[in-house]
Amino acid sequence: MTSSRLEAFSDGVLAIIITVMVLGLAVPKGTGWGDLIHTSGLGLLTYLLSFVYIGIYWNNHHHLFQLHPQISGGVLWANLHLLFWLSLYPFTTAWLTETHVAQIPTVVYGVNLLGAAIAYFILQRAITRQPGGDRIRDVFARDWKGWLSPVLYMLGIVLSYVVPWLGLLPYVAVAVIWLVPDRRVERYLRAQAAENDTA
Amino acid sequence: MTSSRLEAFSDGVLAIIITVMVLGLAVPKGTGWGDLIHTSGLGLLTYLLSFVYIGIYWNNHHHLFQLHPQISGGVLWANLHLLFWLSLYPFTTAWLTETHVAQIPTVVYGVNLLGAAIAYFILQRAITRQPGGDRIRDVFARDWKGWLSPVLYMLGIVLSYVVPWLGLLPYVAVAVIWLVPDRRVERYLRAQAAENDTA
Amino acid sequence: MTSSRLEAFSDGVLAIIITVMVLGLAVPKGTGWGDLIHTSGLGLLTYLLSFVYIGIYWNNHHHLFQLHPQISGGVLWANLHLLFWLSLYPFTTAWLTETHVAQIPTVVYGVNLLGAAIAYFILQRAITRQPGGDRIRDVFARDWKGWLSPVLYMLGIVLSYVVPWLGLLPYVAVAVIWLVPDRRVERYLRAQAAENDTA
Amino acid sequence: MTSSRLEAFSDGVLAIIITVMVLGLAVPKGTGWGDLIHTSGLGLLTYLLSFVYIGIYWNNHHHLFQLHPQISGGVLWANLHLLFWLSLYPFTTAWLTETHVAQIPTVVYGVNLLGAAIAYFILQRAITRQPGGDRIRDVFARDWKGWLSPVLYMLGIVLSYVVPWLGLLPYVAVAVIWLVPDRRVERYLRAQAAENDTA
Repeated sequence: MTSSRLEAFSDGVLAIIITVMVLGLAVPKGTGWGDLIHTSGLGLLTYLLSFVYIGIYWNNHHHLFQLHPQISGGVLWANLHLLFWLSLYPFTTAWLTETHVAQIPTVVYGVNLLGAAIAYFILQRAITRQPGGDRIRDVFARDWKGWLSPVLYMLGIVLSYVVPWLGLLPYVAVAVIWLVPDRRVERYLRAQAAENDTA
Repeated sequence: MTSSRLEAFSDGVLAIIITVMVLGLAVPKGTGWGDLIHTSGLGLLTYLLSFVYIGIYWNNHHHLFQLHPQISGGVLWANLHLLFWLSLYPFTTAWLTETHVAQIPTVVYGVNLLGAAIAYFILQRAITRQPGGDRIRDVFARDWKGWLSPVLYMLGIVLSYVVPWLGLLPYVAVAVIWLVPDRRVERYLRAQAAENDTA
Repeated sequence: MTSSRLEAFSDGVLAIIITVMVLGLAVPKGTGWGDLIHTSGLGLLTYLLSFVYIGIYWNNHHHLFQLHPQISGGVLWANLHLLFWLSLYPFTTAWLTETHVAQIPTVVYGVNLLGAAIAYFILQRAITRQPGGDRIRDVFARDWKGWLSPVLYMLGIVLSYVVPWLGLLPYVAVAVIWLVPDRRVERYLRAQAAENDTA
Repeated sequence: MTSSRLEAFSDGVLAIIITVMVLGLAVPKGTGWGDLIHTSGLGLLTYLLSFVYIGIYWNNHHHLFQLHPQISGGVLWANLHLLFWLSLYPFTTAWLTETHVAQIPTVVYGVNLLGAAIAYFILQRAITRQPGGDRIRDVFARDWKGWLSPVLYMLGIVLSYVVPWLGLLPYVAVAVIWLVPDRRVERYLRAQAAENDTA
């Protein structure tokens, strides 16, 4: 069973999540710069953050499936589980924006990010448990970003209870450290190609 | 005529249905946990249920077309007929949520589920009637889930007339029994691969 | 230049048009059958009509590009021109529904259908003008449906000025005669396959 | 690493941007031609302009990736950066329309167009910097359209401060000069094919 249709479906869902968030941007009633900043300024910033997050998941998803894992029923549902958490981004982003980064909405946004991270981890596990998956497990052996991210999300959730705006800092930090896509996969593919050449 | 474009189009429609339902989630006006649960709690649960249903149809659709059926005009329309019923999920889910699981909306939700199940059955029939379709008919010979589901939907519709919340139970039950994707197809593909190896 | 990406993009646009129309369906405030019929009954019917139209265009588009036409800049824009007209369906359908099939909205709906038909005709012409396109021109030599449709659309537009509901009849008639996909392409592909076998 | 999934994802986002803009079209409350023109006339014109722009980007993106560039992490993010700017079109188009082409919204629309143009330029640079990218750099050596466009956008932004409607003229002009897709790529591919034939 090939992964091409799973990838196409995931691409579709991620593409729509990104675009649907723009629908949530309130269009200013007035015609000046002040109206734009007042009505849409915060919304544009939170949209940018969520856009980067979806972009990160798309990049890593893309890299993960370049390892051509075997697809079982378990992998299909682990993937849908990830898409479920990501599909809530437009909702939690809208609440965060409309309440001007209030306490609980910032916590809920962090819980959503954490949920997606855990779902991605489960997907990675489901894939490495397939026959031939040890290969993939080795690629992800030292996954410091994968372990640091949930810690930062939880830090953000705790900080949100103190000062909501502070809670956003770790969320932004995770986005920044993931902006560089998962080099391990590229390195593995290159190493394998070199091996094939010498053999 | 290959099925790749039919699959791509169906993937697109299903991906959008899932994401569009999130647009129907009301964002709380307030900033507390109570506001979230009061405004969006029920909506998140019904969204989860409909999400799982779309996921089930995507999984089974994916399995069905891995048998590489011949595509005729009849199959194209049987597929569009299925997509029509599935495209109504955001509408019936929204009515169910906004009326807090009232009687008739729960019945209508069940009718929508039943309609999609019948449309899927018609699609499966249209495919097995193509030249070479007996092969596929054999795979689906003992389709207990396929027969149980409409019975449970009808049970749910009847129960909704008594107590609407009770009607949701059979709908949830169907989702649970289908969470495991259609193993028959995987078994058939494996058996065929083994046969090819011995030949 | 292959047509695969043009097809994927068109599939995406058509898939979204279909699903976006469901967002236009007003969800009833009440909880009874009467509320459903009163608020959404007409909307469901016009949605069904527009859904069938998009389905027809998808089927015919699918058949047209199975002839593997050469893709030039002109074909790309002829295709985008068609997608433009089709993308207006959610808008004209919503106006038709919300005004309960008033005179001018029924005329405008017909103009939209006519515009899409003309755009499809232009796309077909752009394709047959490519090198090697005579082959495709022969397939579409006796295109009675292609000629009858605009006549029926214009009849519908005129009838709408008399009694708007009457104007819908020719629109429905066109949908019915096109429900059967374009057999000429299937016949041509079969004939060609047979020829290859004897050669 | 192949570009097919990058193309599919970009197609998805562009397809949705186009269709989502239609959701922003206000449906007239009245039933006459006057209501249509008054409520939706301007919206249809700005939709047409933004539709053509998205079409242009899709065409050029399609041509760019037909040169089969190598895909690195940098190219992935340069592509997402372009999609980010394009995803703001529905928002800036809606503000332009709802304020009836007021001064600042016309400036902001121009800034959005300029941002997308710069993002496209960065994407092109990211691609030509890949190993083997000199080939692609040669194709885009004399890029007069690529240089004229930002100049016209800036002219439009300045003119918007004088008379907003005047600012739209250069934006329309850019759309017109780009309606013809990037011939250089077609010419290059043809030249290369001819070379392969003689070799």
